[in-house]
Amino acid sequence: MLNAAVRLFNERGYDATSMYDIAVSLGITKSSVYHHIAGKEQLLQMAMDRALDGLFEAAEDVRQQDLPAIERLERLIGRSVLVLAERFEFVTVLLRVRGNTEVEQHALTRRREFDTVVTELVKQAQTEGDVRPDIDPATAARLLLGMVNSLSEWYRPRPGGAAAIATAVSAIAFEGLRL
Amino acid sequence: MLNAAVRLFNERGYDATSMYDIAVSLGITKSSVYHHIAGKEQLLQMAMDRALDGLFEAAEDVRQQDLPAIERLERLIGRSVLVLAERFEFVTVLLRVRGNTEVEQHALTRRREFDTVVTELVKQAQTEGDVRPDIDPATAARLLLGMVNSLSEWYRPRPGGAAAIATAVSAIAFEGLRL
Repeated sequence: MLNAAVRLFNERGYDATSMYDIAVSLGITKSSVYHHIAGKEQLLQMAMDRALDGLFEAAEDVRQQDLPAIERLERLIGRSVLVLAERFEFVTVLLRVRGNTEVEQHALTRRREFDTVVTELVKQAQTEGDVRPDIDPATAARLLLGMVNSLSEWYRPRPGGAAAIATAVSAIAFEGLRL
Repeated sequence: MLNAAVRLFNERGYDATSMYDIAVSLGITKSSVYHHIAGKEQLLQMAMDRALDGLFEAAEDVRQQDLPAIERLERLIGRSVLVLAERFEFVTVLLRVRGNTEVEQHALTRRREFDTVVTELVKQAQTEGDVRPDIDPATAARLLLGMVNSLSEWYRPRPGGAAAIATAVSAIAFEGLRL
């Protein structure tokens, strides 16, 4: 049911999708849907949680590694690409949310927390002398995540595709395009 | 009127904005609005054209420069950041469009044309030996523009801000974060 709802949210927009539409797309009655789910907003929250939980699991895994900050940063950015590819429809829902309700505001707060994790890694890597000191860490974090999040606009699943993109993101972000 | 409409499109969404809302926000009657404009879609088209015209003017300026492809690419990416900052509300409208109508489809086609300009510059720079050959040019173009377009999510105007961000984008994309 969550998958069906998320597909509709992304196709038509969250506001334009009704519980009736979700029921129709599953070939069941609206009352059957309400048997499982309190309402549309619960589906939105579940979808955004699937995206955010993936990102925070990656952050937690990386945090526990005994590595220089730049290595942890590079791994976290790579993992974020994979989360985005694996949970594509969920992340797309998350990235389109504008904060119109409490549930959306809560998701935006968690997104900002994730931005802060990335910003802190950039800062630490600067302190360790591994990242150029002339870039504001928060700006660097936003640009790194901007690159990653852009996948929601153009990524199309194919075997090995996500790994190749993670490698490209890493190469551009850490080594630069210039030979 | 265009500015007022674009502000509402970005605050409430295009679909949720009516010609009546636009009239109210200007303190005039709906019939006065229709005196100047055929309908909401014309305002959408004008907004997207302002964004796209800025990008294509930058592409044309850069095309005429007698410089290696990598220099032209770097200038075009920098110029795109400035266009996004200067025409922020118009670009934001453009980036949120999903292609639901003919006007939106036309804008998406022009966006893809711009992506192609960037892809061709990456290709040419690879041929000239200035860009690492291990990255797919179309992927590189999407990631570069992903970084630039992410500004629509987080950029807040302040003096010198856009120039600093253009420098940061350029540093990350072409030289990489790693020292």
